[in-house]
Amino acid sequence: MGKTIAEKIIEQHLLSGEMKPGEEIGLRIDQTLTQDATGTMAYLEFESMGVDRVRTERSVAYIDHNTLQSGFENADDHRYIQSVAAKHGIWFSRPGNGICHQLQYERIGKPGKTLIGSDSHTPTGGGLGMLAMGAGGMDVAVAMGGGAYYIPMPRMIRVNLKNRLGDNVSAKDVILEVLRQLSVKGGVGAIVEYGGEGIQSLSVPERCTITNMGAELGATTSIFPSDEETRKFLKAQNREEDWIPLFSDEDAVYAAEYTIDLSELKPLAACPHSPDNVKPVDELKKIKVDQIAIGSCTNSSYADMLKVARMLKGKKIADGVSLGISPGSRQVLSMLAECGALADMIDAGARILECTCGPCIGMGFSPNSGGVSLRTFNRNFLGRSGTKDGQVYLVSPETAAASALTGYITDPTTLESVGKVEIPEQFRINDSGFIPPLPPEEAKDAEVLRGPNIKPFPETHPLENEIQAEVLLKVGDNITTDHIMPAGAKVLPYRSNIPKISTFCFGVVDETFPERAKAAGKGIIVGGSNYGQGSSREHAALAPLYLGIRAVIVKSFARIHMANLVNAGILPLVFEDPADYDRIRQGDVLTLSDIFEGLKENRVILHAGEKEIPLRMELAERQKEMLLAGGLLKYAAATGKQR
Amino acid sequence: MGKTIAEKIIEQHLLSGEMKPGEEIGLRIDQTLTQDATGTMAYLEFESMGVDRVRTERSVAYIDHNTLQSGFENADDHRYIQSVAAKHGIWFSRPGNGICHQLQYERIGKPGKTLIGSDSHTPTGGGLGMLAMGAGGMDVAVAMGGGAYYIPMPRMIRVNLKNRLGDNVSAKDVILEVLRQLSVKGGVGAIVEYGGEGIQSLSVPERCTITNMGAELGATTSIFPSDEETRKFLKAQNREEDWIPLFSDEDAVYAAEYTIDLSELKPLAACPHSPDNVKPVDELKKIKVDQIAIGSCTNSSYADMLKVARMLKGKKIADGVSLGISPGSRQVLSMLAECGALADMIDAGARILECTCGPCIGMGFSPNSGGVSLRTFNRNFLGRSGTKDGQVYLVSPETAAASALTGYITDPTTLESVGKVEIPEQFRINDSGFIPPLPPEEAKDAEVLRGPNIKPFPETHPLENEIQAEVLLKVGDNITTDHIMPAGAKVLPYRSNIPKISTFCFGVVDETFPERAKAAGKGIIVGGSNYGQGSSREHAALAPLYLGIRAVIVKSFARIHMANLVNAGILPLVFEDPADYDRIRQGDVLTLSDIFEGLKENRVILHAGEKEIPLRMELAERQKEMLLAGGLLKYAAATGKQR
Repeated sequence: MGKTIAEKIIEQHLLSGEMKPGEEIGLRIDQTLTQDATGTMAYLEFESMGVDRVRTERSVAYIDHNTLQSGFENADDHRYIQSVAAKHGIWFSRPGNGICHQLQYERIGKPGKTLIGSDSHTPTGGGLGMLAMGAGGMDVAVAMGGGAYYIPMPRMIRVNLKNRLGDNVSAKDVILEVLRQLSVKGGVGAIVEYGGEGIQSLSVPERCTITNMGAELGATTSIFPSDEETRKFLKAQNREEDWIPLFSDEDAVYAAEYTIDLSELKPLAACPHSPDNVKPVDELKKIKVDQIAIGSCTNSSYADMLKVARMLKGKKIADGVSLGISPGSRQVLSMLAECGALADMIDAGARILECTCGPCIGMGFSPNSGGVSLRTFNRNFLGRSGTKDGQVYLVSPETAAASALTGYITDPTTLESVGKVEIPEQFRINDSGFIPPLPPEEAKDAEVLRGPNIKPFPETHPLENEIQAEVLLKVGDNITTDHIMPAGAKVLPYRSNIPKISTFCFGVVDETFPERAKAAGKGIIVGGSNYGQGSSREHAALAPLYLGIRAVIVKSFARIHMANLVNAGILPLVFEDPADYDRIRQGDVLTLSDIFEGLKENRVILHAGEKEIPLRMELAERQKEMLLAGGLLKYAAATGKQR
Repeated sequence: MGKTIAEKIIEQHLLSGEMKPGEEIGLRIDQTLTQDATGTMAYLEFESMGVDRVRTERSVAYIDHNTLQSGFENADDHRYIQSVAAKHGIWFSRPGNGICHQLQYERIGKPGKTLIGSDSHTPTGGGLGMLAMGAGGMDVAVAMGGGAYYIPMPRMIRVNLKNRLGDNVSAKDVILEVLRQLSVKGGVGAIVEYGGEGIQSLSVPERCTITNMGAELGATTSIFPSDEETRKFLKAQNREEDWIPLFSDEDAVYAAEYTIDLSELKPLAACPHSPDNVKPVDELKKIKVDQIAIGSCTNSSYADMLKVARMLKGKKIADGVSLGISPGSRQVLSMLAECGALADMIDAGARILECTCGPCIGMGFSPNSGGVSLRTFNRNFLGRSGTKDGQVYLVSPETAAASALTGYITDPTTLESVGKVEIPEQFRINDSGFIPPLPPEEAKDAEVLRGPNIKPFPETHPLENEIQAEVLLKVGDNITTDHIMPAGAKVLPYRSNIPKISTFCFGVVDETFPERAKAAGKGIIVGGSNYGQGSSREHAALAPLYLGIRAVIVKSFARIHMANLVNAGILPLVFEDPADYDRIRQGDVLTLSDIFEGLKENRVILHAGEKEIPLRMELAERQKEMLLAGGLLKYAAATGKQR
């Protein structure tokens, strides 16, 4: 039976498990990346593992999220990451060097390799033919130490592209169309492979726009073949030697197939407040625009920026619009400067922001209250822009630039064509923004710089046979990781400071929780169904850990959050009968006894006063061992199994 | 008797008073500028005056301070300022267009004109031969309405420059030398005029570096002649017609004269934490540097940036240094892009920040905790960088660039000369960042956009004959405007929202004050000597006004803050016998009676229980009328005297 691209890469990297959809597999990881908002914790975790030097082929620590630096915290974190990277064999990418995913495919990524990154848009690298996946910081720490990365074997989805995109229609419109068809849940448990003759007309940066926003499908990752277009791109980046050919077999088998005719695509927009709330731009043309942001790991390549510059050249943006442009990397910025495109943007009235994630993660450039903001980004969740009632539309660079000129949402196909932007024969190469790690002999004595914002990883506890504790918080259904551990400009600077960030834990639900939990010393959380949905942020497990939470009992868990709880050594439990949820109140003192015996059957009895309530565990053997060891890091250190 | 440059301009603009040092004079104002952190309040004040259209020759509203936009507040303020400017005949400078003072001398300022601006570095325009002064927002509002600007007639100081600067020594080193000699108090009540043959070798941007930082002398302003160099600069900006010759008379009289031999100057640095704590760079060479920031209204001209780029070209900054560069305007940025200098900076590892004030007002790029930061800025007050224990050194662009390469504070004269950067024959002109006001007929129906962060100017109260109120706060000596109304990234976004910003009032002294004052409804503050020293921020009067403060009784006032209290309609009083300060306690209920009678003699009796305490007033007749009217705005509206 033939194989898909992903199956070929998985097969070459398989350390454990069978390649049957849904079964856990362990993968050898070639490359890792971190960004700074998740990276500080990942490196604290890596340090606690006691490994001298990373065992990957290439690990890179990027600074691109917390770059506003309103206070000492960000700079402290950057210095910590730079020094810990130098000591342990990790490359460091300076702030201002660019956005991690853009830089990774420009300068680091290689077709056929595995990459995990502590950022949910790591799948961007799939545009280069990598198996690139987002992961928790702890998973990245383990992978840097040489350990496997565990996922359920995904099913395979194929999207066939045919014909070519029309004038001023864009790769962004392709992924918006996929989102329209598949929805934000359509990719769960799957890898999306793109193929068909239509892909030949898409350059690597265009492919990376598509794989980037595949994250919004809920997919494990997305991937393109490594073909002549890939070789052309790598050659223009002075690294043709990194190229290998990589295609799926003719007779590969897919769980589902879709076809998109590129020539029929029209400009699309994801309307507030979901990336799959997709409508034709043409239907939105009466909406007045307050603000436009062009950039992010989705749409900040040289080609994207050139198209924008061509559209703006010699014109002036509408008086009522504020236009911010953040090029994706210093390579992009310096090439824009060199060819005059930067001046064209400036002359039209654009603000040139730093080469960082910036507005995409709510780090500045927030819209006015109630403002309509068009963004070439990948997420338009309510409030993510930093403005609670901001109305964010996700669009292509062409749609963004056209709308900047008119002041209204504008279909770019009604304007003059900007033409196709070919990959330049030679990109401008200057890697001074990357600082290499110290050689091993120097690294030994190198100091890791810890400012007051860098606090140690919180203490984990080996699972005990009995847990007796109070229900410190009882919450309802659909609690997200944003409820548990909010993000935003106010909280993100404390991602390396669990004691501090814990004071924001569950703040939107019950501001008294952190203090009550600290006072109680230990506790239990009870929740409804779909508990922990949303992002993969491990802080949603680490803050409860720091606050003394020993068990979380719910109707059902979101998969990644449950894994994060186990990684942190917190016992996740599920009501056998969801109706029992109503029999427990906040403040009840609960007892779980004979837990070790219960682990064998994945079942334990909860005592709440006179009541006896049966609970289920959904734990793999590996996870049980992890809980007994006191979480993933202690497990990895104790067993050596991860190496 | 001959006249100085400033005396000539004052004479041509004199509306009231005599030109005797120390006597109050009223001046006609030709141009005004605001920045956004003070501008929102200035325009709210202007609106409350009921004037349809500004009566100045040119008023410009710049956005350059609050540009991070971490939340809706900044964008709301920008929209408010843009819409109120369009309606009332004021030019609007978009965010990202550049720093107000840089843009003002590039595109707007004219020799021989008067300019006031709601920013303390407005004297920058003196480099172009303007009489340019910093003022409170309310003063700017009154000037926009056609009213006079009142100051005590300054005394005249002359600084003679001879010979020329050596290689890699800079205009910044000139003003640092002046600060070393005169100190931060040396210019109080004075205008500093620069002359001598040495000025011929200084371009307008270099002169503007010197006049800019003249603010740190405490001077009313600084000024250069308008000579052939000025004409050359204006011609290169396509506005030679704005030039007039303007020199002091040979027999002009100065209260003091100083001479600086430019050829003997060495690179200097203002060490933490005062701009006059000046030492030779050579003595600091063992200090390791964490961070370097190049930019601000002091040093962000094209020439400054070119010198930096020349020094960095083909090299790489030290691994341990983070270098941020903010060009002063989009003219500067686009010219740097065009000539390849921007790419040289990027290649060396610099972060390119937006063309704004940025780090200079603590808006981002804060150093790490305890970090050493070299900055080409004008102020290094403790904590201003956003990092409480940051160690900020003020240096020239040459010293900054040299130190970026080595990682230590480095004397740039030990490196290769960057040569003299001549003014280009033609600057790159594109004024798309300026939005002109609406024509009068359209302006009538134009809507002013007020988001939820824009709150009306607080209600003022005509002075009553009797004030009976509790002492809500008693403070000691040397209370600064930063005690009364803190700045920083957390508080600045609320500069247009007095109800909200008032909750931070006196927060560092007594967090309970705002709530207690609101509850009491009205109150009195008692303070020691030098009360209200520091900046001219009028929020230090408006927040107490909003919180119900009717009188402030102290041992002595800082001059500008006392004027701001009067402008806000708050009665400022001084103990005749400072020892009486000890006879009043916080919580005492005080009575001031027969105030109207007391105004005549500038004296009133305070009743505190059985005690009778004599108080002095230090009010000019104009100020008494103002208090009776309920503050400056009501006075201006009622009397028409300001027009």
